[in-house]
Amino acid sequence: MGRWPAGAQERLQRAAIELFSERGYERTTVADITQSAGLTERTFYNHFVDKREVLFPDQDRFIADVVEAVGAAPADRSPLDVIIAALTVDTEWFDRRRDAAQRRRRILDTRAELRERELAKMAALDTAITGALRARGSSNTSAALTAAAAVAAYRLGTDNWLADPRGRTLRHHLRSIFEELRRTAENW
Amino acid sequence: MGRWPAGAQERLQRAAIELFSERGYERTTVADITQSAGLTERTFYNHFVDKREVLFPDQDRFIADVVEAVGAAPADRSPLDVIIAALTVDTEWFDRRRDAAQRRRRILDTRAELRERELAKMAALDTAITGALRARGSSNTSAALTAAAAVAAYRLGTDNWLADPRGRTLRHHLRSIFEELRRTAENW
Repeated sequence: MGRWPAGAQERLQRAAIELFSERGYERTTVADITQSAGLTERTFYNHFVDKREVLFPDQDRFIADVVEAVGAAPADRSPLDVIIAALTVDTEWFDRRRDAAQRRRRILDTRAELRERELAKMAALDTAITGALRARGSSNTSAALTAAAAVAAYRLGTDNWLADPRGRTLRHHLRSIFEELRRTAENW
Repeated sequence: MGRWPAGAQERLQRAAIELFSERGYERTTVADITQSAGLTERTFYNHFVDKREVLFPDQDRFIADVVEAVGAAPADRSPLDVIIAALTVDTEWFDRRRDAAQRRRRILDTRAELRERELAKMAALDTAITGALRARGSSNTSAALTAAAAVAAYRLGTDNWLADPRGRTLRHHLRSIFEELRRTAENW
């Protein structure tokens, strides 16, 4: 999931999603995006290393927030409860941007290089959660297995949220998928 | 994990790993590889679409084998047991090539583009296992969550196998990591 903070970065992001949706990712240049957002290319490159990254803004900060929330959780809670709590902080922020997130997903689905980047971002989240669980005392392997399952659940929950015709919240979908993860694991 | 069948493809694979290890992935050309293997570039491109793919041979066949084994498993076995059985067929084939697999892994670790491709291959395995579990009657979500956890376990088990100073078999490491997945999930 990407976050789009207010200001220049969010304007560039919105302009990019608009243009990628209209004329395609490949046929849109950074100059097109900055012109549409009324900003300079210099500003663009202050925020993003390249055109592709405009679709993955602030994921480092998102990951850092999740890691911090895992680290701050009470010691007696189960690893999965801790992760669920960390991933459902501030989901209203995403709910307010569901339309843009849906369009972003459709753009990602058009190109293998964008899907590969998304996988790399999810792998970075996985690694970060693994480290945060180890810091709470989980073994390396147990932390890695829990993080991988949690990231898969997060991805599926986000998919369900984006596809939900009833528009229920991201928190609802995440809580529901994590419950399903527990039920599923009982049959392993 | 890559498989290296006998013949031209395996010779190209071995020559590539040799050269990538010696002089680096970037500084090795397809011409270098074919010359070292005593084969033509035409033969190379009959087997691989590009230089990168020489490090990911036959993964489509591996995935197809796993899917077939999942589909052929008795209906009364648990989804995870079915996957474990499917992933531990024929692991001796990998054990006989552990040295090459270790060197391959070190090459992958040197470049982000190779790690991203590895992630994409693991995602393809995940998608295939999800489909195979659905065909056995699992719900979409349950199948996807089980497949994701299983692929994570497979990856970690393979890592442990490659790093094991005692050289225990891949089957040993896979069985052991799947047991740990079950123990871990009990604490979720």
